[in-house]
Amino acid sequence: MSSGARAHALILAAEQLRTGTEAILAANALDLEAGKASGLAPAMLDRLKLDEARLEGIASAVEAVANLDDPVGQVIDQSERPNGLKLSRVRVPIGTIGIIYESRPNVTADAAALCVRAGNAAILRGGSEAVHTNRAIHGALIAGLTTGGVPSEAVQLIPTQDRAAVGAMLSAAGLIDMIVPRGGKGLVARVQADARVPVLAHLDGICHTYIHASADPDMAREVALNAKMRRPGICGAMETLLIDTQFSDSSALVAALLDSGCALRGDARARSLDTRITPANAEDWDTEYLEAVLSVAIVDGMEDALAHISRHSSGHTDVIIADDTNAAAQFLNEVDSAIVMHNASSQFADGGEFGLGAEIGIATGRLHARGPVALEGLTTYKWLVRGSGQARP
Amino acid sequence: MSSGARAHALILAAEQLRTGTEAILAANALDLEAGKASGLAPAMLDRLKLDEARLEGIASAVEAVANLDDPVGQVIDQSERPNGLKLSRVRVPIGTIGIIYESRPNVTADAAALCVRAGNAAILRGGSEAVHTNRAIHGALIAGLTTGGVPSEAVQLIPTQDRAAVGAMLSAAGLIDMIVPRGGKGLVARVQADARVPVLAHLDGICHTYIHASADPDMAREVALNAKMRRPGICGAMETLLIDTQFSDSSALVAALLDSGCALRGDARARSLDTRITPANAEDWDTEYLEAVLSVAIVDGMEDALAHISRHSSGHTDVIIADDTNAAAQFLNEVDSAIVMHNASSQFADGGEFGLGAEIGIATGRLHARGPVALEGLTTYKWLVRGSGQARP
Repeated sequence: MSSGARAHALILAAEQLRTGTEAILAANALDLEAGKASGLAPAMLDRLKLDEARLEGIASAVEAVANLDDPVGQVIDQSERPNGLKLSRVRVPIGTIGIIYESRPNVTADAAALCVRAGNAAILRGGSEAVHTNRAIHGALIAGLTTGGVPSEAVQLIPTQDRAAVGAMLSAAGLIDMIVPRGGKGLVARVQADARVPVLAHLDGICHTYIHASADPDMAREVALNAKMRRPGICGAMETLLIDTQFSDSSALVAALLDSGCALRGDARARSLDTRITPANAEDWDTEYLEAVLSVAIVDGMEDALAHISRHSSGHTDVIIADDTNAAAQFLNEVDSAIVMHNASSQFADGGEFGLGAEIGIATGRLHARGPVALEGLTTYKWLVRGSGQARP
Repeated sequence: MSSGARAHALILAAEQLRTGTEAILAANALDLEAGKASGLAPAMLDRLKLDEARLEGIASAVEAVANLDDPVGQVIDQSERPNGLKLSRVRVPIGTIGIIYESRPNVTADAAALCVRAGNAAILRGGSEAVHTNRAIHGALIAGLTTGGVPSEAVQLIPTQDRAAVGAMLSAAGLIDMIVPRGGKGLVARVQADARVPVLAHLDGICHTYIHASADPDMAREVALNAKMRRPGICGAMETLLIDTQFSDSSALVAALLDSGCALRGDARARSLDTRITPANAEDWDTEYLEAVLSVAIVDGMEDALAHISRHSSGHTDVIIADDTNAAAQFLNEVDSAIVMHNASSQFADGGEFGLGAEIGIATGRLHARGPVALEGLTTYKWLVRGSGQARP
């Protein structure tokens, strides 16, 4: 299918989500009832719940993906050999993407839209607590996509809630080309442990912010507060604050975090800054709190900070706050994480904030794609060779 | 280490291979003696055997890799966000590459050089029949590399011939970032089946050449002969010839292949072209012969050719010979293999022929890198974000 035809089909799918609002919300009500009856936690119920505004958000997101530039067909590079062979590398779809996710029903539409935009098929496996909602969203998507000429097989929702279906997806090497798990650490860990298919994921977001000796005190405070407290539960939230022993304003920095309602767990030197800081144990440095808790260590300069990050970072996002441009350059060069930032909040680690329009996920693996992954990461390439009858000597 | 320092260390390693010629050939003689005593096949002994010319070739190849452009540090793309954040994606080494290979001792030097050039560490596991040769080559490499400032740990040769070492490499997820098997199908299949680490490889090279109705008869004959008979045993050799029923010169084409010493196995229509063609059975269409044997089918136009290739290609290299540029464009667009060629011999499927300078291998997987993989495929990227104190709203 042409890029324009795929985009148009997604616009039709977004329309179907809107005209299907009543049916989708009715299905969602069934899931919410069942969730309440089975004692789902309020936070889970909130993730599950749709209303007209949220559903409009889902439809708008599908439209936004439809309007993104299509990577398929882009020429990555080209060359001509001395024998006249013309080579080019051209982006093509990966093939079939499996998405395994938990209670948020928006993933059904988001993931399907991203896959279709980049010419892939999607096999969706949502959480059992959202089964009616996912079926209703999937039905609306398919109604729009097929009207636009996309075969209904291009977006499939696993019909059974049997857990064995997940195992079948994870072992479907050669049939499913890549699996993207979307959900909590338990889900991601299981997928990573059991998959025989390549997995695009991050297990942990243990993100560090290093306050260099040269950091501007106001900037350090503002960025650190944002990195932890804007939304403590996202994967780009800071989990460890490293303060240089030469930084001039350490006490005010930790006081601002404590005053904002963040619990701090510190090493001995950090605790000397404020009596409200409780002791950190060895596990704290490897813990993704995902709440208003932060571990704090005092470090003796750049090498010490780099060593701590090398040992404890999950490779997601690490940040330096520094006015010293040489220090910043060293940090950006030497920290080996998917995202390395200078003078910015780690909460910017997001495909939308990076201008990608959307994201299928954030990857901390080392191959294929790292950091926020959007349409380009849902493609691969092939080599095209154009000759005029060349035989190899 | 800087790019220049790594390149210089590789030049020193090449020098050590030259000054160590006597010791390396003596070690090789031990392996050859042991191989003869244990009844190694003559072809295996030939792969194992070094002489001064072959060793000079190995040293020159290391120098050539040293002189390749370093991908590390290359900026893939960059952008600036409306909030002033400056983003860039920069190539970085993957990390630690495991190479598992069979009798050819040149892989010890080739793979180590490619890994070091792109800033990676290499863990080498060679075949037991080349153990003395590999140790001698490794010793020379390390002598040069360490003189140039590369730590000796950057290129490690597994010291034991215990088969369990291979299993340990294959399960070393988080320690080894990628495994490259180099050898026969048995080795590659075992690695692909057992690895918990990403694998860069091709299992089969079942390469097709489709002779379109519009093909120039002389070009079709010359390219087809080259694609099969230049070196029938390489992965880019043609294994199946698809002749369009409308092609005007089919009999002369198959006669030329038969006359060159190639055995042909054909479907009923192909066999009607020449009595020397024997019947192909169902397995022939999925067989990589790697010798002077070729399967031949007559196809009814483009759709039939595409359907055959979709069903039987191993995704390595497929070729169309055609004067009709629309037909060629359709073939290049629709065939989903790592390499798709128009009017050229499939034997060009090679990193050197593609201008990459060398190759660590040819990949038929869909993620990370496809086709001939050289230095770029031995890197990944990280995102650098440069701000001025931005906090996320």
